[in-house]
This record gives sequence, structure tokens and C-alpha cells, in this order.
Amino acid sequence: MTIGLPPVLRELVHAFTRLPGVGEKTALRFTLHLLADKKPVMNVLSQALAEASARLGACDHCGNIAELAESGAAVCTICADSRRDRRQLCVVAKVQDLLAIERSGAMRGRYFVLGRLLSPLDGIGPDELPLAKLSSQIQAELVEELVVATPPSLEGEATALHLAREFGGRVKVTRIASGIPHGGDLEFADPITLGRAMAGRRGLEG
Amino acid sequence: MTIGLPPVLRELVHAFTRLPGVGEKTALRFTLHLLADKKPVMNVLSQALAEASARLGACDHCGNIAELAESGAAVCTICADSRRDRRQLCVVAKVQDLLAIERSGAMRGRYFVLGRLLSPLDGIGPDELPLAKLSSQIQAELVEELVVATPPSLEGEATALHLAREFGGRVKVTRIASGIPHGGDLEFADPITLGRAMAGRRGLEG
Repeated sequence: MTIGLPPVLRELVHAFTRLPGVGEKTALRFTLHLLADKKPVMNVLSQALAEASARLGACDHCGNIAELAESGAAVCTICADSRRDRRQLCVVAKVQDLLAIERSGAMRGRYFVLGRLLSPLDGIGPDELPLAKLSSQIQAELVEELVVATPPSLEGEATALHLAREFGGRVKVTRIASGIPHGGDLEFADPITLGRAMAGRRGLEG
Repeated sequence: MTIGLPPVLRELVHAFTRLPGVGEKTALRFTLHLLADKKPVMNVLSQALAEASARLGACDHCGNIAELAESGAAVCTICADSRRDRRQLCVVAKVQDLLAIERSGAMRGRYFVLGRLLSPLDGIGPDELPLAKLSSQIQAELVEELVVATPPSLEGEATALHLAREFGGRVKVTRIASGIPHGGDLEFADPITLGRAMAGRRGLEG
């Protein structure tokens, strides 16, 4: 698709294809769009990438994205916020899930990003999870409740079960509810979701 | 969506939204993907953007993308290729169209990228088209045929008509065919396309 084009252009197209969901066609569209009188935008994007690469990292405590201090230490805005409830620690699979929960405003405690889920078929066993770090975090912060917010998938449930076995003796381990989403239609819900919605029913106060 | 995130990250998300078809959600996905252990990719992309910005420009002759020489001059690979037929000059709206025609292998001559089409409603009149440059290109290269390959849209047709009026006295001006595309279904073709396919019919040799 980029035959006959300058090597510098081909390299930029190739670099864009490393972004998730971006194929060669989209990468070429990005490149040609920028080359049509958008050089200032190219320079801004180049600079923003270099800055982010140099100045961002994973929070030392929870794995959320944090700005690196001069010392190389990184503490995210949530872990640095003394008003957050230290007794609740919400375990999520990835940073995106943490951000989604933050947007909902439903969690007043802190977080712990696992970075991956148990998946024996992909060779990810318990040893690949950062359980030692989670354990020391529970101890250091005097955590009382571990809110497991991994997704309600096969891997997410397996991970939740493993966390309950591992830490159930030390802290209360809870699991977020699975059921019909807000505005969802029972008619089109899958049997597993309906089963969970039934199993997770709660008493209504009249 | 990026509330509570470090400013460095917000700036990168914002820079990504300048790409065509990329909203804040996709920009955040790009950013978080890169921040999850993909710092080498970030640096490669940053570098490729800086290189492309510094070393690419529009070809002095045709407007195609070209590598800038030390002198600041830019000649694309097509204009530099002495085997191309100088007598044919194919006029296109944008570089993407030039690349599409090149992939088809159907044009042995050279190109001229207009960069825009006539569009009175958007305030783009004949004065906004690079007609003086096209005129001197026709003269310098001793062009015999101007193949107008602007799209068969309202703006593309108006531009083609204007080029025919402007240069018809000096060179032969031709227009690419409009009709049913290869593999297309007559049943679902729009009336304008069908009308053009009929009007553009050619004799079949038996």
C-alpha cells in the first residue's frame, strides 16, 4: 500500500500500526492527514509522546498511571489522596477499569491493578499475578475489605475465586454484582447473565 | 473522561484526538495501551513523527509527498522517474487518490495534486485552485493530455468542467469514466450512476 513512498513516510505508517485497532489503511490515513499542512500537529504529537514516555509510569502502590517524581518514585493521585478510605481496596484487571469505576463515583477506597487475569490456557497461573505485592499492600494499609472488580468473564471469575482463597482468611473479600445492566432488556439477556441476576437477587424494602 | 489523570497524559490524549476519526475514547485507548509496557513503541512513534515532520514535504512539481533534499527542494519518486510518460498529466484532488491510481497501474504519465475541489458553497472558487502552477507545469513538461481524475461528485465534476474550459484550448482534456464499478450490482446502483453508465457506453468489438 505504501510502495513508491519515501522510507520516512513508510516508517511513520508502520509506527502508527502499533496502536490498537489501527491497520495499515488507517495508519496511512493518519499519516497523509498530518502531512497535508498539519506539521504543527505532528510536532505536538511527537512531543507529547516523548513527554509521556519520559514522565509517566505505574504507581508504586496500586499500578495506576502516575507522574514520575525526580527521585523516580511514582504515586498516583488516588494513592496520594488522604481522603480516600484506606480500609477498602478495589482489585481491577486493568487501568481502564479503574478509570471507569472512578467515573461512576462508586468507590471511595483505593485500588490495586492486577495487570492480568488467571488464564491457564494462555499459561497465566497464580504465579504470574502480583499477589505478593497485593498482600503487602493489604498489610501496609490495614485493609479490611477487598472488593474484587475483575470482569464477570471466565478469567475474571477464576481470578476472583483465587483471590478469595488467598486472602479470605485475612480480610473480607467481596465481589461486584453481575446481572442485567441498567436499561438492559431481559428478553435479549444471555442465560448466564439471567442466571446471575436471579442468584444475586436481594430483598426489597417496602 | 480523563479527570484525575496526570496533565502529561491528558496532553497526549488531546494530541491523539487531532488524528482523523479519533475521538477522546479512542485517544485514551491508544494512550493507555502505550503506557502498559509499550514505552519503546511510544519512543519509536515520537521519533517517526519528528523525522517525518522534518524530512517530508510536498513535491515541488506535482504536490505528491516527497523527501526534502538538503537544499530544501522536494521532488517525488514519480516526478524523478524519467521512464514516466511526460505527455500525460493526471489531475487528482488529493494524494490518497494519486496513490490509489498508482496501485491500479493504469497511469503511466505523471500527476498533479490540486489539494482541493471547486466548492462555491464552502467559498472555494477558481482562484483557490493552483491553476497557475498547473499551467506552468503543462508548459514545462510539454503535456499533450490532461487526464482529469477528480471524483465523480458535484465538486469533482465542477472542477473537471472548469479545467476543460481553462486548458481545453491548449491540450486534450479527458475525464475518467463513471459507471457501475467492477463486481457492482445494477439492481442497487443509483440512478445517476446508471445514467452515466448508459451515456458512457462504448462499442464492443465482436
